[in-house]
Amino acid sequence: MNDKLMLMIPGPTPVPETALLAMAKHPIGHRSGDFSKIMAEVTENLKWLHQTKNDVLILASSGTGAMEAGIINFLSPGDRVLCGCNGKFGDRWAEVATAYGLQVEKITAEWGQPLDSEKFREQLEADKEKTIKAVIITHSETSTGVLNDLETINSYVKAHGEALIIVDAVTSIGAVNIPIDELGLDVVASGSQKGYMIPPGLAFVAVGAKAWTAYETAKLPRYYLDLGKYRKDAAKNTTPFTPPVNLFFALQATLRMMQAEGLENIFARHQRLMSTTRAAVKALGLPLFGPDAVASPAITAVAPPPEVDAEKIRTIVNKRFDIALAGGQNHLKGKIFRIGHLGFVSERDILTAISALEVALRELGYEAFTPGAGVATASRVLAES
Amino acid sequence: MNDKLMLMIPGPTPVPETALLAMAKHPIGHRSGDFSKIMAEVTENLKWLHQTKNDVLILASSGTGAMEAGIINFLSPGDRVLCGCNGKFGDRWAEVATAYGLQVEKITAEWGQPLDSEKFREQLEADKEKTIKAVIITHSETSTGVLNDLETINSYVKAHGEALIIVDAVTSIGAVNIPIDELGLDVVASGSQKGYMIPPGLAFVAVGAKAWTAYETAKLPRYYLDLGKYRKDAAKNTTPFTPPVNLFFALQATLRMMQAEGLENIFARHQRLMSTTRAAVKALGLPLFGPDAVASPAITAVAPPPEVDAEKIRTIVNKRFDIALAGGQNHLKGKIFRIGHLGFVSERDILTAISALEVALRELGYEAFTPGAGVATASRVLAES
Repeated sequence: MNDKLMLMIPGPTPVPETALLAMAKHPIGHRSGDFSKIMAEVTENLKWLHQTKNDVLILASSGTGAMEAGIINFLSPGDRVLCGCNGKFGDRWAEVATAYGLQVEKITAEWGQPLDSEKFREQLEADKEKTIKAVIITHSETSTGVLNDLETINSYVKAHGEALIIVDAVTSIGAVNIPIDELGLDVVASGSQKGYMIPPGLAFVAVGAKAWTAYETAKLPRYYLDLGKYRKDAAKNTTPFTPPVNLFFALQATLRMMQAEGLENIFARHQRLMSTTRAAVKALGLPLFGPDAVASPAITAVAPPPEVDAEKIRTIVNKRFDIALAGGQNHLKGKIFRIGHLGFVSERDILTAISALEVALRELGYEAFTPGAGVATASRVLAES
Repeated sequence: MNDKLMLMIPGPTPVPETALLAMAKHPIGHRSGDFSKIMAEVTENLKWLHQTKNDVLILASSGTGAMEAGIINFLSPGDRVLCGCNGKFGDRWAEVATAYGLQVEKITAEWGQPLDSEKFREQLEADKEKTIKAVIITHSETSTGVLNDLETINSYVKAHGEALIIVDAVTSIGAVNIPIDELGLDVVASGSQKGYMIPPGLAFVAVGAKAWTAYETAKLPRYYLDLGKYRKDAAKNTTPFTPPVNLFFALQATLRMMQAEGLENIFARHQRLMSTTRAAVKALGLPLFGPDAVASPAITAVAPPPEVDAEKIRTIVNKRFDIALAGGQNHLKGKIFRIGHLGFVSERDILTAISALEVALRELGYEAFTPGAGVATASRVLAES
């Protein structure tokens, strides 16, 4: 049905009506007192959401723009960096760093498995000369639904002492606890169409003191993504370049909603959505892609057996129930499908998605589960949590 | 009054209700057939608006992102470029080019005056070695309301034969005739919150064949703004990075409106708005900033005499009539004010702004005009045009 689509992909995520209507307001001038007030409020609330007193800078770009800003502002050509690669977005970090002429050493893990923290420890401990300038990792790997062990890897970076830690938190901010100041994370990049509950078009970079020191001597060329300009202007509640004002209206609305819900509740809700989804999928006899212990609260990847085609499941769920699930990316295309439960998603949405999934599986002739088992399990987990 | 603001600044410009409501729709997945359909339609209509068969690529950024993309995709460190500088945005071109290590030669004119085409001719003719790789200019200089003579400067670039012409058309696309293919413009950058009649957040770069040849050997580093990626994906009606889907909804709506109005009518409307505004301002005894012969159809800059403070005029017009006029930028702050008449602006809006301006002038004790002269003149010009 037209206008009936329910988004259960890892971004764009569903947007609350309050934010949609805020976005439909006439734009205002971005050099006005009214915009400065919004900029001040939004910046303050972003710091709250990021659990940091650091700068949280707002870019007009996709999340990749924030990732690129996270590299080019703090590093110089030829700098040695370690990139954690266990999915599409880890690979993207390596691509950006390579495009800018950094000396990239990839620490890889199979897609669907977490990065091995020990490999980071070994490299960092072996680096007596302190030539490693940054460790760059993806926290929640959206392509596989795996949460990397940021805390442990970060502890090795801290023991190294020199290297910055640069983190893609695109699908973790607003979904899972990532206390930036407590962990001392130097650079954290994210994007609006995820936990922030607004459409794509804004990206965020949280930058700490050590990174700003690196900024002073970093030699990669930059202009549009020069975070120094954003920092200077943010201090005056303005932006160096024209901001997408209507997306700011939406962000103002969702940050207020998030404050009303509270950080602990937001994280707990995502945990509940994840546990419920995983338990229900298992009850349907479908293998999960990636271990429970490292599951991302943002997205669950499912690897159906060869007899039920992942793309066919997505098609039926989409055509018949107007629910958008995500497919696999790169070599996982057709092999997995992904259920997004990030942002403006409630327990009701999980029940709905699991119910629809049951119908699709039966339609495809897959009967390795008791009818109703998915929803029964989901309801049990929800009742217990 | 709340919600009563009327934007008469050079961007964000007013947005039609159809586009605002389109933007308030729930986002859709950007890797869906539905999005591809929108991408195809919007790309086709952008080519129509740009009067080109070249690629018109869509970025999630402000106009400055498009300007930067226009440089870093086609040039290499140390390349010699001529930058036309007669306002804030000409200066920005030089800043971007300098940030990327180009050898920048500025051709300057006083703010409020057009670039001297002869200076470009001299430099280009003297360049027997063909070391000039690009001529970079701003078409409509938003900071002063001056339209540079793109056609003449471009003819000298064409006579040179080697250099690319790279144009900031941020406030000229959709306001003034800029036939990209007819003129053979290589790179043309613009932004959504201008003639496109939607909020800020999208930017556009039109790229011709000669520029794509330069792309093959251009050595400046790039990733997020790598136009090759956008070209490759646009051919499949998709984007390399998450696009701001809701802004695409709005753009789809306004491009349809523009097609219904027709290019000739759009340009004629902007000419009429410009002529009316300029005649009415003169009738109020206020000096225009910049000669009539080079006036931009997007914006009119006014330099009131010292006894009436430009900022006070803006304040009264804003506070009392909820009309946002733009101030002067950089050293022109407080010396000029600017009336935007770009995009979704009708003749009624000019009458309104001129009437409000009359009241503000009288409130400030400026009486060097016959009461009603502004509106009387505007009405005469409109009746005759």
